[in-house]
Order: sequence, then structure tokens, then C-alpha cells
Amino acid sequence: MSNWLDDIKWTDDGLVPAIAQETGSGKVLMMAWMNREALALTVKEGRAIYWSRSRNKLWRKGEESGHVQTLKDIRLDCDNDVILLEVEQLGGIACHTGRHNCFYKQLKDESWYEAEAVIKNPDDIYK
Amino acid sequence: MSNWLDDIKWTDDGLVPAIAQETGSGKVLMMAWMNREALALTVKEGRAIYWSRSRNKLWRKGEESGHVQTLKDIRLDCDNDVILLEVEQLGGIACHTGRHNCFYKQLKDESWYEAEAVIKNPDDIYK
Repeated sequence: MSNWLDDIKWTDDGLVPAIAQETGSGKVLMMAWMNREALALTVKEGRAIYWSRSRNKLWRKGEESGHVQTLKDIRLDCDNDVILLEVEQLGGIACHTGRHNCFYKQLKDESWYEAEAVIKNPDDIYK
Repeated sequence: MSNWLDDIKWTDDGLVPAIAQETGSGKVLMMAWMNREALALTVKEGRAIYWSRSRNKLWRKGEESGHVQTLKDIRLDCDNDVILLEVEQLGGIACHTGRHNCFYKQLKDESWYEAEAVIKNPDDIYK
């Protein structure tokens, strides 16, 4: 039987990029990577589970911070090599810096400026 | 002098993933890759210019289709390894399949279903 996971064009490292978009606001929260197990678990558990390339292990988003991403919808692109998740962001904070989303550096006059406020001090998130 | 391009954490292949989000609708249109030259030209020319990994050359989005993406804003994420573009999508079609965006395959009951209509036949786009 064909498996929906086989339809995905995984990288040589067995990964696929996954974009998390917030339901309602439509804000792009972050992009991370998933392996086959992470994507299968994301669907099974109904929450975003990534593969941490730096820690080389499964990363249940929110496992330490409580900032879980509840899965609302999952899409695959035309080339079968990018995943788009629609999620509810618990706590309203997706970024480990304590910001709503990770794309807070804005290019202006050939420099990057911080364009999003810190909602919560990371020291108070990761205790 | 420090250069804003040096702040980016490029892959070993000298690339960075770039997500294109439509201004106004907030829809995620596509994700593609940029090298240093592509990103510099994107900012210089005010339109999305990617690096085509399959054709191994610069890809001025819309060069054949006319479906140019006009640059409105450019963001970098916390890890400096993902770009988010806010763009105006000329023609209202981002996908080479003739759909508004590339994320038209939706997961339902462990299968991918086409969830977005074809706006224009690709044969009429790429003549």
C-alpha cells in the first residue's frame, strides 16, 4: 500500500523543511526540519514535532517552554519537498527569543533591525 | 565594513531557503532557495530572484510566466538561516501548475488531495 510519507521528496539527510503558519493571523512563525518519524508523529499527535539538527533528536515543539503548536492543517507543495503547517501557537510565542515569531529581523538600508518585541524573557520561559 | 549578506548562515552549498508570503492575503505562496547573488539582486531589483537548484542558475521569478513577485519586505529569522519575503504576486499565480500558490496538496485520511483550483492552464502560461 502506498504511504503518504513516501510521496515526500526527502533530502539526502532524510529531512523536509516545514513552515509553521499561525491560524487566524496568517503570520509565518518559523521554519524547521522534519524527518519521517517527526512528520508521522506530528500527524499522529496533532502537534508540531520537528527534527532538531543541532541536537540530533526529535523536538516536540513546546516540550520545555509549553509553547506547543497544535496542528490544524497540513499541506505539501507542488514539488513534494516543502511542508506547510497551519497551527495554533499556544502562549502566542513561537521563538526561543521570547518573540511571537522567528522572523523579527527586518532589512532596512542594508542592515538587519529587530522589528518585533520580546513578549517574555527567555529566562522566564526556559527555567 | 560588515555586510548584511555576511549575517546569513548559508548552507554548505551557499544557499538559504526563502519563503514568499503574499502581502494582504498573508498566504504562503512558495519556498525556494537563494544564493548570495540571488538575494543581493532581489533587494537591488525589488523582485524575488531565486537560485534554481534543478537548472543550476539564477531564476528571476516570472521571467517566463510574467508572474513576477514584487518585493515589499524582507525578514531574517532568529537563527539567520531562513528568509521570509513579503511580496505582491503579479497575475495572482505563484505556482508553475497555474495555481495561486504551491501548497495545494492537503493531507486527509493519510492521503494528499488537491485543495486549490488551477487558475490558468500551464500551457497558456509557458508558451
